[in-house]
Amino acid sequence: MRTDNGLLATLTDALGKDAVLVDPDVTSSYRRDMMPLAPHGTPLAVVLPADTAQVQAVVRACGAAGVPIVPRGAGSGLSGAANAIDGCVVLVTSRMNEIVEVDPDNRLVVVQPGVVNLDLRGAVEKHGLFYPPDPSSYDWCTIGGNLSTNAGGLCCVKYGVTTDSVLGLDVVLADGELLRTGRRTVKGVAGYDLTKLFVGSEGTLGVITQATLALRPLPQAPGTLVAAFPSVAAAGAAVSRVVREGIVPSLMEIMDATSIEAVEAHLKTELGAGKGCAALLLCQSDSGGEQARRELSAIEQVCQDTGADLVHSTFDLAEGQMLLAARRAVLMALEEYGTWMTDDVCVPRTRIADLIAGCERISAEVGLRIAVVGHAGDGNMHPTIIYDPTSPGEFERANQAFHDILAVGLSLGGTVTGEHGIGKIKREWLEREIGPVGLRTHRAIKAALDPGNLFNPGSMFSME
Amino acid sequence: MRTDNGLLATLTDALGKDAVLVDPDVTSSYRRDMMPLAPHGTPLAVVLPADTAQVQAVVRACGAAGVPIVPRGAGSGLSGAANAIDGCVVLVTSRMNEIVEVDPDNRLVVVQPGVVNLDLRGAVEKHGLFYPPDPSSYDWCTIGGNLSTNAGGLCCVKYGVTTDSVLGLDVVLADGELLRTGRRTVKGVAGYDLTKLFVGSEGTLGVITQATLALRPLPQAPGTLVAAFPSVAAAGAAVSRVVREGIVPSLMEIMDATSIEAVEAHLKTELGAGKGCAALLLCQSDSGGEQARRELSAIEQVCQDTGADLVHSTFDLAEGQMLLAARRAVLMALEEYGTWMTDDVCVPRTRIADLIAGCERISAEVGLRIAVVGHAGDGNMHPTIIYDPTSPGEFERANQAFHDILAVGLSLGGTVTGEHGIGKIKREWLEREIGPVGLRTHRAIKAALDPGNLFNPGSMFSME
Repeated sequence: MRTDNGLLATLTDALGKDAVLVDPDVTSSYRRDMMPLAPHGTPLAVVLPADTAQVQAVVRACGAAGVPIVPRGAGSGLSGAANAIDGCVVLVTSRMNEIVEVDPDNRLVVVQPGVVNLDLRGAVEKHGLFYPPDPSSYDWCTIGGNLSTNAGGLCCVKYGVTTDSVLGLDVVLADGELLRTGRRTVKGVAGYDLTKLFVGSEGTLGVITQATLALRPLPQAPGTLVAAFPSVAAAGAAVSRVVREGIVPSLMEIMDATSIEAVEAHLKTELGAGKGCAALLLCQSDSGGEQARRELSAIEQVCQDTGADLVHSTFDLAEGQMLLAARRAVLMALEEYGTWMTDDVCVPRTRIADLIAGCERISAEVGLRIAVVGHAGDGNMHPTIIYDPTSPGEFERANQAFHDILAVGLSLGGTVTGEHGIGKIKREWLEREIGPVGLRTHRAIKAALDPGNLFNPGSMFSME
Repeated sequence: MRTDNGLLATLTDALGKDAVLVDPDVTSSYRRDMMPLAPHGTPLAVVLPADTAQVQAVVRACGAAGVPIVPRGAGSGLSGAANAIDGCVVLVTSRMNEIVEVDPDNRLVVVQPGVVNLDLRGAVEKHGLFYPPDPSSYDWCTIGGNLSTNAGGLCCVKYGVTTDSVLGLDVVLADGELLRTGRRTVKGVAGYDLTKLFVGSEGTLGVITQATLALRPLPQAPGTLVAAFPSVAAAGAAVSRVVREGIVPSLMEIMDATSIEAVEAHLKTELGAGKGCAALLLCQSDSGGEQARRELSAIEQVCQDTGADLVHSTFDLAEGQMLLAARRAVLMALEEYGTWMTDDVCVPRTRIADLIAGCERISAEVGLRIAVVGHAGDGNMHPTIIYDPTSPGEFERANQAFHDILAVGLSLGGTVTGEHGIGKIKREWLEREIGPVGLRTHRAIKAALDPGNLFNPGSMFSME
């Protein structure tokens, strides 16, 4: 392990002793995120700056010392993007957790990166406002991480992803200077859209220290619909028809038979797996009143037309929440079968059934259970592979399945990541997806903004 | 004027004689767009490539000859971004006007850049689909121009601007290589968001040769509301209250007294100017049925609460179109007073009344009429200065007013361009708005992607 006492002294001077962690027992918990596949190294130090000036001090000190910086939020990521590399400084934004301003009259909020998604939601809800992006980890992930990965969630089918809610950013660049992108107005075309360049750049271009986010009116209490299908193809056909008919639900999730069985066992409830249910669709409308009834009724008709065995709608909030809880319980339920590794592909919405069929084929090939759940409304699927890490060869087969699923996703006209990011696990897949000209363009932009390769080097793509 | 027979011969070989225009009588109509303030030069040639391969040939030939390229759509722009510079090649995309594919099941369309906005709208409407961005010149502007300027329009308050509808692009880079950005799926985070970097880059980074665009369900026939206010402040208060109460109309336009008077005279109709109407608000809801009635009724209540003298709602389509026609007639109506020069600032929605007050002050200072119309729902205002170009000093005073308005917009926390772009008229304002770090970042990206400064050099910002 590299030691660099000069750098550590500089960091301690700038941030205070409590904000510079070097004890390996302490720093080890900052080495990786939630993706078991991703490589991770041992950091020289973990720093917890309290404000933008301290971030600038860290960037300048590390730049001068030639020590790379890996920016990190809560560590809820699923691509290893925030994983430490050997000898790096992990820059954790969790102390910068202030909601700086809520401006209800202009429907915007200004936040620091360490604010937890759920806390932001709560703070603006008091003003009748809504911050849509809702990644599954919304109760502990931070806005900085959401911005860096351009996080999605269940709301995207109606409200888009994180980038669609961002008006402007403060970013500390590689030379320590503070760049302000975007604006406080809802429209604006002065210059390049640097805001959306930094969103989703996975910590490779700078450190986001503040964000101005657009808010929406708080939606109405949702009505919920669940439909059970005898085949994945029938459920896929229903999704296509919903899209085709111009219905925009506020949520449209799919669960395959493996997911349904796992949740039934875990929650001791019945969702229909025993009765030949091969796929469940779960939809919501948050339009309120007559409009919501019309939307759910139209989806109900589509599900019946495409062969659903059972369709049930409810405007009872508790019942709706219970149904949604079944969807949210999938990963936890799968833990009863073994360790899981969740993948993330997004396909055209007409190809969802083909993707699930591909996962069934891969499951048979590798001899491992693969459950598919996903955001059917935008084609973003999370095939989740179950394996026993103590059983010889199973991890390798799980890894094989993980990559085979990406190949299927690409072959269907999809992308290798709908919302989790490239990080340290899908670098070679980024190149396959975007091609040599795309990769060259990425490298040119990275070299232009971070000529010393200071920020998260080797993540997303390598410079060689 | 520079002549370069070697280059011209290469271009003619690649594109055919008809696609390389050099006759000054012909090329002069490609020298400038619709903004009288912007400087424009004399091109060496105007080329009209028919496909991506021909664009690549032009880029490679010009790159080798060191002759700059100014990409151009229909020339409807209002910032001089597509204005020729001396000795350049103007690359016009109007021959690349094919709608390559409509995919209703995935709600997307693939188009070439020369497709006229209105033609795209018509083509997808047949499938019950909707392409929202609707700049005022929608009946003749092209998608390529819309993409390059990130065009807005009247729909933005509900549906966003051009960038919000773009899934992916084909772009010819400075080295002649073809870059494909984005994807056909509605979500995807593989790599940097290069798509949104090229959108709005005003032809300075490459030539867009194809675009994949997301479509929406066709909205319902709109209901329309018009409200007359005794003061601009009251109308501004109504806008703020609409935003504050979470109402999202599909259109919310404002006209000040000067605009109203001009339209009344032009259309021989009465809009209330004679009765002390200082500002009109024009709103629509395209939500349909009960929902639309609820939205317009809520806006009606807001207008009454904030002191409107008259509020009128209609679901009669012809009447609604007539009211909208009054708004769309403003620029033409102003021509009866003289030549106009339209500005473009976007302010926080709470500051609209302050902006209009600022314009009234400037109008008095320069002694010229300034009419303010704009997209109130997103704070994007178009103060329009009337002058007589034959009257000594008036152009200079109009120019002065144009820039004074930008200063007011910035001082209110706004931006110097909401939707028209920086182009060749607001370069110094870009720097004022984004600051030295922002400008340096722009230059770094431009140098990385276009090291020879081949594309539209000196537009948006200079490299020195």
